[in-house]
Amino acid sequence: MRKSISSLQNAAVKKLIQLKEKSRERKKNNSFVIEGFREIQLALKSGYQLQEIWVCDSIFNTENASFLTDFEQKITIFDCSEEVYGKIAHRGSTEGIIAVAKAENHTLKDLHLPKNPLILIAEAPEKPGNIGALLRTADAAGVDAFILANPKTDLYNPNTIRSSVGAVFTVPIALASTLETIEFLKNKNIALYSAILQESVPYQQMDYTNPTAIAVGTEADGLTDLWRERCQQNISIPMQGTLDSMNVSVAAGILIFEARRQRGFH
Amino acid sequence: MRKSISSLQNAAVKKLIQLKEKSRERKKNNSFVIEGFREIQLALKSGYQLQEIWVCDSIFNTENASFLTDFEQKITIFDCSEEVYGKIAHRGSTEGIIAVAKAENHTLKDLHLPKNPLILIAEAPEKPGNIGALLRTADAAGVDAFILANPKTDLYNPNTIRSSVGAVFTVPIALASTLETIEFLKNKNIALYSAILQESVPYQQMDYTNPTAIAVGTEADGLTDLWRERCQQNISIPMQGTLDSMNVSVAAGILIFEARRQRGFH
Repeated sequence: MRKSISSLQNAAVKKLIQLKEKSRERKKNNSFVIEGFREIQLALKSGYQLQEIWVCDSIFNTENASFLTDFEQKITIFDCSEEVYGKIAHRGSTEGIIAVAKAENHTLKDLHLPKNPLILIAEAPEKPGNIGALLRTADAAGVDAFILANPKTDLYNPNTIRSSVGAVFTVPIALASTLETIEFLKNKNIALYSAILQESVPYQQMDYTNPTAIAVGTEADGLTDLWRERCQQNISIPMQGTLDSMNVSVAAGILIFEARRQRGFH
Repeated sequence: MRKSISSLQNAAVKKLIQLKEKSRERKKNNSFVIEGFREIQLALKSGYQLQEIWVCDSIFNTENASFLTDFEQKITIFDCSEEVYGKIAHRGSTEGIIAVAKAENHTLKDLHLPKNPLILIAEAPEKPGNIGALLRTADAAGVDAFILANPKTDLYNPNTIRSSVGAVFTVPIALASTLETIEFLKNKNIALYSAILQESVPYQQMDYTNPTAIAVGTEADGLTDLWRERCQQNISIPMQGTLDSMNVSVAAGILIFEARRQRGFH
């Protein structure tokens, strides 16, 4: 079904904006907003179900029109004016397409791990942009899972999706408490290496070729105590400069790619 | 000398804002703006000369008052109202101190390199934030120099300084054209490894224990052709995921820390 919308006062427009801006609305509706054709395609490829499509004809590439035909029998496609699109989109320039999708479950037991998994864990990243950057690194490293421990924001925050450039759809993700995560690793015999300075060994001295999880904390406070108490070994990146400070996704990249290097690249 | 300023219309206020916002003004005056006590201290430690200090008494930590006494004989200290500080500062919350400093030379011949240098090069990063993130990584890796080739913004852009968390003052930096940079490396017998996918070998297969420079390009377009034609070897990080995309400072971190790992940490 196709519906035209040109009024900013339309109830559906208001609902979409709420869904985009409010974590509470996303939770209540068990759905979220994806902006951009490439991101929508990545979500579909990973099995996400679309519930609505919003398209601005004057911006959307006509070469992709068949994409819409496939959907118009099943869900509502809102044809919106440039004014409406400008209001609902992050940038007026983004490809002219936005979708509402059903949220997925991201529990630890939904993870399908191979025999010798490599897992990246981030505890309570401060900003959606940090989660997005970590997910991008996780995708590049081909980790078997990314676990968000004690998350502060929901996974479907538009800034997380945008900054992940779609990695939020390509990486297997679980959200869990720190305690649940640590118990999960223990039950699966996955060695936990926590990026913590105290009592640590330089990261490159460890062997990551067996089942491995690497955990990083926030830039401001690092990991909480439980990660130190319950891990196999604290690891650290020896700081060679003056500042003793590193971006969390750069640190995660260095650690996870050292593990990948030891295991051999595909 | 101390001067009180409470009017937003004051000519000195306007001049400071110009200096902060306009690259052209920084060039004309050969000076720039540093915000935050920690950043100012890092700049001083690296030999930068302050020309003015702006302080907001109600925000600035009184424990650091002696810092100001040292300077009031030599340069002008502007005591400004909260309103003025709110106008000149990026965030009203930043420590209540801003300084104007003399720009330094950043030419290739100003670099003092050790016998077996490790150098990070970035060609034309798109955003000041990217330069800041790269500098932070360069500091953490303890590189002997960071070369900004074909820079698009000046080094003293406030966003570069802020996102570098002060690394702009701790890392030896040179700005030069791509051709000058490549000639410089050749004359010094420093092997150049360019992060370029075409005809590349996986980064971890190279030996970086001799004089080494690693060059990265922009996220959108990578390095320009000259880097491919004139380098020792193209290197690449084998992408293990779906997206084939990596943040430039994460990529730089992985490459430069592999070089550091091979050379041994301090």
